[in-house]
Amino acid sequence: MSDKKKLIFATGNPGKLKEIKAVLGDLGYEIVTMKEAGIDIDIVEDGKTFEENALIKAKAVCEASGCLAMADDSGLEVDAMNKEPGIYSARWMGYDTSYDIKNQAIIDKLQGVPDEERTARFVCACAAVFPNGEELVVKCNMEGRIGYEIAGANGFGYDPIFYLPEYGKTSAEITPEEKNAISHRGKALRKMAELLKKMEASE
Amino acid sequence: MSDKKKLIFATGNPGKLKEIKAVLGDLGYEIVTMKEAGIDIDIVEDGKTFEENALIKAKAVCEASGCLAMADDSGLEVDAMNKEPGIYSARWMGYDTSYDIKNQAIIDKLQGVPDEERTARFVCACAAVFPNGEELVVKCNMEGRIGYEIAGANGFGYDPIFYLPEYGKTSAEITPEEKNAISHRGKALRKMAELLKKMEASE
Repeated sequence: MSDKKKLIFATGNPGKLKEIKAVLGDLGYEIVTMKEAGIDIDIVEDGKTFEENALIKAKAVCEASGCLAMADDSGLEVDAMNKEPGIYSARWMGYDTSYDIKNQAIIDKLQGVPDEERTARFVCACAAVFPNGEELVVKCNMEGRIGYEIAGANGFGYDPIFYLPEYGKTSAEITPEEKNAISHRGKALRKMAELLKKMEASE
Repeated sequence: MSDKKKLIFATGNPGKLKEIKAVLGDLGYEIVTMKEAGIDIDIVEDGKTFEENALIKAKAVCEASGCLAMADDSGLEVDAMNKEPGIYSARWMGYDTSYDIKNQAIIDKLQGVPDEERTARFVCACAAVFPNGEELVVKCNMEGRIGYEIAGANGFGYDPIFYLPEYGKTSAEITPEEKNAISHRGKALRKMAELLKKMEASE
């Protein structure tokens, strides 16, 4: 058993946990998943915004465990689609529909839409809830445009249609290191790490 | 005209603005009210939590102005009343009902409720929304108990029935300086100031 305080991150995704440990690992917490902490609860993500959904998850885990809990919620906002799929990014067209199909559907919907109206952004809200009821939320974006074709094998989800003008590539064509430096989740997690250090220092 | 960047605080309350300037004044922003910034919009605070309402206000002002915007939302949660009045604290029993009447109504509702079940807390969520879409939210609490009688002339709102066991007084009986050091709003604003400094430093 570790003497460190536990920080429970509400994710079941091992890839995400690795990313989180890389950023938050030096904060002095033992970072564990819900499963590792023995937290087995169903959480209904019925918020209307990324921030609400991240808070709903982190609050539920903090209340069930009595430990500092963190969660994130992220998605893609396409301006020409009235900011859809937004908070429904994962479940859009059905959870089991492949991203090849979902990505092609977005390209099809934007047929004839000129470059300057193809703006889009990945959004990530990261929430931390402390056992004393205090909370922190950080939301960060990665701005780009919807491309004209699926391109790239890195990343996941909507990355192959998310064109980054400054790179001349999609976010599935840049390296994981390049993506982590500019991505919505990378930025939100790094800011959260800075803020947690600051919270600790100002207690 | 100032060369400083504007920070618009979504409040019409001059007392609150003074408190805000005292805490955030050294951040290098020119802190102005919506009115001073010429922002005249109606904001519907239809969130279900303090955090949502603070974000709704700050987002609306940021979008209308293109400037960094901040807002807070606060209230009283009485555990024996199922955490009411909560986000409805200001409008509970009607906006125009005096706090003498509202405070007596809470004391009456808690008749016969023993000390240990009279727990309550003041909650303040403070949100900052940046023109690039990034967001920060901080929520802080002040824990106490509902007293047995109205006491004290300092503070405002529900302060005269909010008993602080460590002081043996209500939050309307301690000095404004004492209250500011421990209050939900004082803590949330000071944390926000620290976080804003950190955000600037890490840009």
